[in-house]
Amino acid sequence: MVVLDKSRRVVIKLSGKVFSGEDGSEIKRYASMLANLSSSAKVQPVVVAGGGRVARHYINIARGFGLDEASLDIMGIEVSRLNAKLLIAALGEKAYPAVPEDLEQVTEAAASGKIVVAGGLHPGQSTNATSALIAEKVGAARFVNATDVDGIYDSDPRKNKGARHYSEITTKQCRDLLSGESSMAGGYDLMDIVALKVIERSKIPTVVIKSEPEVIRDVVLKNKAAGTKIIVGA
Amino acid sequence: MVVLDKSRRVVIKLSGKVFSGEDGSEIKRYASMLANLSSSAKVQPVVVAGGGRVARHYINIARGFGLDEASLDIMGIEVSRLNAKLLIAALGEKAYPAVPEDLEQVTEAAASGKIVVAGGLHPGQSTNATSALIAEKVGAARFVNATDVDGIYDSDPRKNKGARHYSEITTKQCRDLLSGESSMAGGYDLMDIVALKVIERSKIPTVVIKSEPEVIRDVVLKNKAAGTKIIVGA
Amino acid sequence: MVVLDKSRRVVIKLSGKVFSGEDGSEIKRYASMLANLSSSAKVQPVVVAGGGRVARHYINIARGFGLDEASLDIMGIEVSRLNAKLLIAALGEKAYPAVPEDLEQVTEAAASGKIVVAGGLHPGQSTNATSALIAEKVGAARFVNATDVDGIYDSDPRKNKGARHYSEITTKQCRDLLSGESSMAGGYDLMDIVALKVIERSKIPTVVIKSEPEVIRDVVLKNKAAGTKIIVGA
Amino acid sequence: MVVLDKSRRVVIKLSGKVFSGEDGSEIKRYASMLANLSSSAKVQPVVVAGGGRVARHYINIARGFGLDEASLDIMGIEVSRLNAKLLIAALGEKAYPAVPEDLEQVTEAAASGKIVVAGGLHPGQSTNATSALIAEKVGAARFVNATDVDGIYDSDPRKNKGARHYSEITTKQCRDLLSGESSMAGGYDLMDIVALKVIERSKIPTVVIKSEPEVIRDVVLKNKAAGTKIIVGA
Amino acid sequence: MVVLDKSRRVVIKLSGKVFSGEDGSEIKRYASMLANLSSSAKVQPVVVAGGGRVARHYINIARGFGLDEASLDIMGIEVSRLNAKLLIAALGEKAYPAVPEDLEQVTEAAASGKIVVAGGLHPGQSTNATSALIAEKVGAARFVNATDVDGIYDSDPRKNKGARHYSEITTKQCRDLLSGESSMAGGYDLMDIVALKVIERSKIPTVVIKSEPEVIRDVVLKNKAAGTKIIVGA
Amino acid sequence: MVVLDKSRRVVIKLSGKVFSGEDGSEIKRYASMLANLSSSAKVQPVVVAGGGRVARHYINIARGFGLDEASLDIMGIEVSRLNAKLLIAALGEKAYPAVPEDLEQVTEAAASGKIVVAGGLHPGQSTNATSALIAEKVGAARFVNATDVDGIYDSDPRKNKGARHYSEITTKQCRDLLSGESSMAGGYDLMDIVALKVIERSKIPTVVIKSEPEVIRDVVLKNKAAGTKIIVGA
Repeated sequence: MVVLDKSRRVVIKLSGKVFSGEDGSEIKRYASMLANLSSSAKVQPVVVAGGGRVARHYINIARGFGLDEASLDIMGIEVSRLNAKLLIAALGEKAYPAVPEDLEQVTEAAASGKIVVAGGLHPGQSTNATSALIAEKVGAARFVNATDVDGIYDSDPRKNKGARHYSEITTKQCRDLLSGESSMAGGYDLMDIVALKVIERSKIPTVVIKSEPEVIRDVVLKNKAAGTKIIVGA
Repeated sequence: MVVLDKSRRVVIKLSGKVFSGEDGSEIKRYASMLANLSSSAKVQPVVVAGGGRVARHYINIARGFGLDEASLDIMGIEVSRLNAKLLIAALGEKAYPAVPEDLEQVTEAAASGKIVVAGGLHPGQSTNATSALIAEKVGAARFVNATDVDGIYDSDPRKNKGARHYSEITTKQCRDLLSGESSMAGGYDLMDIVALKVIERSKIPTVVIKSEPEVIRDVVLKNKAAGTKIIVGA
Repeated sequence: MVVLDKSRRVVIKLSGKVFSGEDGSEIKRYASMLANLSSSAKVQPVVVAGGGRVARHYINIARGFGLDEASLDIMGIEVSRLNAKLLIAALGEKAYPAVPEDLEQVTEAAASGKIVVAGGLHPGQSTNATSALIAEKVGAARFVNATDVDGIYDSDPRKNKGARHYSEITTKQCRDLLSGESSMAGGYDLMDIVALKVIERSKIPTVVIKSEPEVIRDVVLKNKAAGTKIIVGA
Repeated sequence: MVVLDKSRRVVIKLSGKVFSGEDGSEIKRYASMLANLSSSAKVQPVVVAGGGRVARHYINIARGFGLDEASLDIMGIEVSRLNAKLLIAALGEKAYPAVPEDLEQVTEAAASGKIVVAGGLHPGQSTNATSALIAEKVGAARFVNATDVDGIYDSDPRKNKGARHYSEITTKQCRDLLSGESSMAGGYDLMDIVALKVIERSKIPTVVIKSEPEVIRDVVLKNKAAGTKIIVGA
Repeated sequence: MVVLDKSRRVVIKLSGKVFSGEDGSEIKRYASMLANLSSSAKVQPVVVAGGGRVARHYINIARGFGLDEASLDIMGIEVSRLNAKLLIAALGEKAYPAVPEDLEQVTEAAASGKIVVAGGLHPGQSTNATSALIAEKVGAARFVNATDVDGIYDSDPRKNKGARHYSEITTKQCRDLLSGESSMAGGYDLMDIVALKVIERSKIPTVVIKSEPEVIRDVVLKNKAAGTKIIVGA
Repeated sequence: MVVLDKSRRVVIKLSGKVFSGEDGSEIKRYASMLANLSSSAKVQPVVVAGGGRVARHYINIARGFGLDEASLDIMGIEVSRLNAKLLIAALGEKAYPAVPEDLEQVTEAAASGKIVVAGGLHPGQSTNATSALIAEKVGAARFVNATDVDGIYDSDPRKNKGARHYSEITTKQCRDLLSGESSMAGGYDLMDIVALKVIERSKIPTVVIKSEPEVIRDVVLKNKAAGTKIIVGA
């Protein structure tokens, strides 16, 4: 068993958007970057895949049939695991071959030293919160949250042109900003409260960045300023 | 525990096409028909859902990444189980709430007397073959294979206008027709050899029909001639 | 299978304190009340047991050994399941005999019509949040959160004599009050943010009351005003 | 984790006959050969054990009690796993210690670099078909089907003295020959249709040989012409 | 769910000999008697099947290969579960359809009100001890141990013609008699020490009788004196 | 996979007392000794943790509620597994991270070469008996039973001042001494009959010593005479 220094583990949450294309080209780009991180820099990526377009498809139909929200969460998790399998297929031998389904399986998978790719773990928990818990469990040096926007703003920058971007934000400020967010299954975004609390209780260095392979690579390898850095505290 | 007379069980294989729409309207139509069968006629439907469009999406991408065919089969099965969940959601209280994942779970689910909805069970096995095995295991009175065409032809009627339709066909003739069929994951169609052998060894009355709610209802309730009846023998 | 009208299901979260005594007398009192609810009033209680003193014992020691917070959550869950077993033993034939370990098992257990007793389900999720998810999944008519204090105050009434008690509070006000709360494993209290979001998304009628058998009985049977009623909205 | 070059993996299907003796001497002979293959030639054998005499014993009795064919298949699989355990015991430290029960477990077991011994995996699937699927999943360089006769004939050589032996046969010819075969549980022989399709879809080099330790060794190590080579194509 | 009065449950341990015949005629005789008990007398039989000839076959071969005794126990348990499946097949609809594999599954199975058939449960535990534990767990009114001889003797009656038969024996006397017994896997006989302790701690009325369908029926229905009654105490 | 010479494995049973303190200091002392054994002397400790004070707490309350003895055993096992988790937390990277729950998981865990920590495995089996079975399964060179007293006496030395201490005892003498022992869950002590039989059938070198870290270390490393050595035979 290869035991990699825990501090080389980096948890990377990939937005479901990566998996929403009609073909696999986008996934391939991320796989190349991850394989590159894994081999050149002795980083061990632990990836959490989102559900994306297919998850929304199933959730919307089932919600129309009156399925309860907790069961909808479970459907979203199952799709995110299929997405995780695609990324594992694209990574080939570089990846741990199975998708872990709870924190203990994540630990086992991480012990292999290979790239680990999980999907969601539990209903009622966003993939952000799951990623933070995984970072805590595997003792990750960093949690990189790759999203659709280039960091945290004081309002939604896709709707509000004058939204202010933070290069740094405290967890306290973050909570204030996000306290209005809704949590219908499939509607999670950026950081949520559970993720923030986990980051706080275990003091996990966290950044929120725009999801692009090069941006992720630069943050992980060069700690290059991009997106928003989350500071634990008031 | 409601023990329904085994002979009231009918296994219905639903093509993945039912689940390939952008919304849930098609699924809803099938759910109404199944609920109707279940309540008015004391039939217990045991449904096997195919993978359809979403399954092909995952399989095509993963095959492009070089994933082996057996693992592709597993992805297709996982999507068919998500489809099964949609149908269960649409059926509400009429359906057994979980998707059984092996023959023993199918037996348990069927013992509830409710409508059972499964997806695929095993890699290397088409949903046709799986449906035949399920029919065998639950002692079904009939196996109704609802497909994209209205029965078995001597060549593909979508390509060949002069293709001859059978109103009855022996399993032996069937085998001769189908011996050229390929079995890439996602490419199964109509009856395959394993399904035929199971039908033969357990003498399961089988029909291949066009998948339309009314056609299925008429076959199940009125045994109305539609599609192709498969006769066990030479 | 006895199918009880879903709307008769009431989720009751019992504080770990109920299970913290040296003997079983306190548990016995709650069991009598639950058995009584179950038989006289055609209510189906679905109980979630907290971890209490024994959970804190294990968590404190293991935290001293440097165990990560996610693993500590898991220990707390395991103790809460042992507590659930004690309550099941006290209830005898009135209870579903096993402790469900995920939402699907809760659904199955609830389908028995008997009193269901769960513990925690997932790491990173308070028993409050778990209770709200369970209420959502089983379609409960009500979520009764039985705690150490007699409802929600604007500050901790055990520390601040002048704390103001709410007889009603909106989920929005609740979130504002609770946004400062810490989430070390074992330190959850009253409602937390995840629980509130689940209550909001599924509009679950919720009360926070002081944990006393008679208080719980009166709220469930007579809807008698006690504690704090949570109103979904701003 | 020892990662062996996939192309050194050879799937060897052992007829149930190997396990049908009153004592373990026959199993011992095969174990010696396998251990020898494993150490001297850097081949990683992945073995699939058949059910043999004991499987037929259980299947015959249970069929007499009216048990359905799918359940009989499961009994046969369970006996084949007991046989696999005997071979593992005979191999000692050379073998992966557990019998894998699905394709994912086979993958994990094969990753150990040790000799893997499986039994059947799924009802409705012959051990030939299972072996072909395993060959596909582990990326085997070869599939060696060790049977009771020394290759494929145009009719049963045990019944027909003039039966013609093939030194090579195409999958297409094979299908024609075998299309008449019956599939009562326990009655599978040589290649079946599912196995052939898997061989075709993944172009797995396959030989059918007489089951003798030296014959297997010579085929694996020296690629020595023996039995029948199956050529993918028409 | 049919809840049968617990006190109607009778645990019957069937010697592996019942399952050692070449055909199923012996099993059929026991199945008729059990079905009869179950329907005519409102007794719920909970049967524990031994391993018999086939278990000894596997154990002897594997012991010859140097397999450890604990693993041999596991093989014996697996064969006893195959035997249990045969009896379930012979009982048809009268039996709970699955073989329970731990005490909690036994409880669930027994809750169905049907005849339950288990095999062994744990390595290191004879089927006698397992039967006593099952009797304890399901609250059985009686434990009937059907063996190859007609009760307990002061020495082996098959070897010693003058052996004295007990019509009653205390658990204390029993322990003295049996303290010399060896416990190689497959060599358990009559009562063993663990079984005796369980009988003592839960005061389970126990008889050891000769295994014949009529003898079992008479003991269960008429409490007719046969074999040896075990008295709890000194 | 590190394959450690089996003969370096030593099974150490730790009394529940080690885990009964209010804080973790006692556990820490044992962890240091075990880590030390593991690194300096190339011994692989395989530890079995008892249930101790917390187990008795749950068992006493549940017995008061009338729970059956088999279910009480299960509660005790669950507490012993929580204790095992504490020791694993204290050992950190030196320990296999999960608590194995059956003999096959123990084998897998032991294959890691790390310190393995199990709790109980099966109801109806003392942790002594479980330890002996584990010693058998992993091919341990020794079984060290660390208890509350410094070896085996001819009567309870805590009650009888004149009790005679054995420096060596045969398994036969042991059985005679212990045949009066009761087996209420939670009341097992020293060796029991099942443990003795396992020791006999697999000839496992065994010592019973007073549980002190230095005493255990000296016995394991220097084979220093302490406590009672158990001799297989009459």
